[in-house]
Amino acid sequence: MSHYSVGMIAHQGDLYGVVLAGGTGTRLWPLSRAGHPKFLHPLTGTDASLLQATVVRLEQLSPPDHVFVVTGVAHAAEVSRQLTDVPADNVLIEPSPRDSCAAIALAAAVIARREPEAVMGSFASDHLIADREKFTEVIQQAMSGARQGLLMTIGITPTRPETGYGYLECGSVVGDGPVMAVQEFKEKPTYDVAESYVKSGNYLWNAGMFVWRVDVFLAELARQQPQLAAGISRIAQAWDSPAREEVLGEVWPTLPRISVDYAVMEGAATVGRVGTVPGDFGWNDVGDFHTLGEVLASDHAGNVVVGRNIENKSGVLLRETENLVVVPTQGRLVAAMGVRDLVIVDTPDAVLVCPRDRAQEIKQLVDALKESDDHGYI
Amino acid sequence: MSHYSVGMIAHQGDLYGVVLAGGTGTRLWPLSRAGHPKFLHPLTGTDASLLQATVVRLEQLSPPDHVFVVTGVAHAAEVSRQLTDVPADNVLIEPSPRDSCAAIALAAAVIARREPEAVMGSFASDHLIADREKFTEVIQQAMSGARQGLLMTIGITPTRPETGYGYLECGSVVGDGPVMAVQEFKEKPTYDVAESYVKSGNYLWNAGMFVWRVDVFLAELARQQPQLAAGISRIAQAWDSPAREEVLGEVWPTLPRISVDYAVMEGAATVGRVGTVPGDFGWNDVGDFHTLGEVLASDHAGNVVVGRNIENKSGVLLRETENLVVVPTQGRLVAAMGVRDLVIVDTPDAVLVCPRDRAQEIKQLVDALKESDDHGYI
Repeated sequence: MSHYSVGMIAHQGDLYGVVLAGGTGTRLWPLSRAGHPKFLHPLTGTDASLLQATVVRLEQLSPPDHVFVVTGVAHAAEVSRQLTDVPADNVLIEPSPRDSCAAIALAAAVIARREPEAVMGSFASDHLIADREKFTEVIQQAMSGARQGLLMTIGITPTRPETGYGYLECGSVVGDGPVMAVQEFKEKPTYDVAESYVKSGNYLWNAGMFVWRVDVFLAELARQQPQLAAGISRIAQAWDSPAREEVLGEVWPTLPRISVDYAVMEGAATVGRVGTVPGDFGWNDVGDFHTLGEVLASDHAGNVVVGRNIENKSGVLLRETENLVVVPTQGRLVAAMGVRDLVIVDTPDAVLVCPRDRAQEIKQLVDALKESDDHGYI
Repeated sequence: MSHYSVGMIAHQGDLYGVVLAGGTGTRLWPLSRAGHPKFLHPLTGTDASLLQATVVRLEQLSPPDHVFVVTGVAHAAEVSRQLTDVPADNVLIEPSPRDSCAAIALAAAVIARREPEAVMGSFASDHLIADREKFTEVIQQAMSGARQGLLMTIGITPTRPETGYGYLECGSVVGDGPVMAVQEFKEKPTYDVAESYVKSGNYLWNAGMFVWRVDVFLAELARQQPQLAAGISRIAQAWDSPAREEVLGEVWPTLPRISVDYAVMEGAATVGRVGTVPGDFGWNDVGDFHTLGEVLASDHAGNVVVGRNIENKSGVLLRETENLVVVPTQGRLVAAMGVRDLVIVDTPDAVLVCPRDRAQEIKQLVDALKESDDHGYI
């Protein structure tokens, strides 16, 4: 994170990169825990955590003092230690979870105090992106849409009829493109509906990445969510004063728990204020171990060792295995022989074995643990 | 080990039970290690180790002061702690490994000093036996053969053409039976030969359990292995003197490394001095995790959790699994979902996953580790 491209388009203004470091990742149990969520883990094919990789990915767009992280009280210390180049004052700590709208609005309001028409981008901390150059290019396209006053969202061209994501219904091209209007946000569809979306070629996955001018966003928030906007405004006014903690502690718990999609984006699309650019940069939301295995580099037999590059299999002994996703842990050995298509996750206190095609169901194992007395493993 | 049956046949004399606590069990890696061999582990379906189960199994035959254990310097402390009821002086510690003949001869010689015509039984410490009452009955039959001057070996009726065991070729019945003469010891056969043995009905597995009068055994040893017999004799003479350690340290390393089968039993069979009784008491040599799974109690789906009784699955979470052999370790959780016919072994520093039908090949994994730098895991 020490080098920044001289070729950066300085006259367009730098992006304020906002990284949302929240969520647990139940389908990544036993690696991801309530106490140590997935964004803190090296699920990237190197020893960088997903969070660190997210910030490194912004290098070409945001200088370090333009990077903000919003996180909760449980993980703020670890987040701060992982991101040593992000100024301490840019680590925004929510007193309690209030879903994405409050988190994003807080960041927007804090940034607006510094630069009222700043362009900010909001990114999840637990996604993988294969092609970083392409990512930079797409975000720059989105920034140009944002400067025109649109609330921009990055759309991912669907590769399958996924029922786990929301979709964007695209409208007409704006100007010379590549920005397109978003006509409507579609909630997670049924399989048949998802299939028709993919076939039509007119729908993109909503990857939860947004780019906008902070003044445009805050105005739209005030229009649609006046209570939330008023609360955030009070907090922002006290931000650089001794009353920050007092006001944050008083107002934050009163903010509605609502996602930014539902609170702002759906309504903004209805009135023609949302645009999108397709982000075909190899996006993966690291939702489960199977899809993680699809995006990371594998050996000649299709085995993926998470958290190691492909040359380094220390702590892992594989013999006649195929298409495994192996997650080893420091100081222990994972040995496997004669098995295929399995997920094997080792952690300091628990090990998991299941087929890759059932990786989605790990959530149910965690539910079973919740119902039992083994809360220590959750 | 505190209760002894009043019904014990005291007028026939008690058995001296000799337990050989040696060997590593490479095919039980990563549970069994050079530093913590399989006999020290609770592979019994309860929390008793194989060694403890072996001694408990002798309860009806040998009072505690008649139980001897022969072990090496590496494991003597742990053996002593596991077998608190065995008198300290009955724990015979070999200065270095010299194979089974020297170990058994030492025990025989030490017992002979106490009771020159004592009947002793020699047992491996790492076998499982399902039917303890039947075991007691068979050993009592063998004792009667031993009193008649035969070197008795327990033969197991073969259930499959196993190529990993030696076989006993049976001859005529002795007296009224059930003792039979053993005509010849057969080394580990090829599959075809093993198949013909099983079909003939005239062969038993050599389970390495022997019962004899110590004077008969020592005489046969002197006849066939004069050097070994002389060395053991020197050690025995010094046993109850201050020179024990001195003489043991001097003589022991000069003893030939040879198994008792090869050194004594094969030659004794040739001259008609070996007998056998079939021991159909559910014998299992705990050679690998698959066969271990076959002998322990399973849940309704065929899953076996080693070291736990069937009601107690603490530390294990199984969901839609079948025919697993799971070996959990203290303080950690093993979770498995949607898999079948696997061995899953968890230890404090390594985890292993492989199909049950490849459990025999675990030895090759250990060999691979030996060739690598990961010697810490062996």
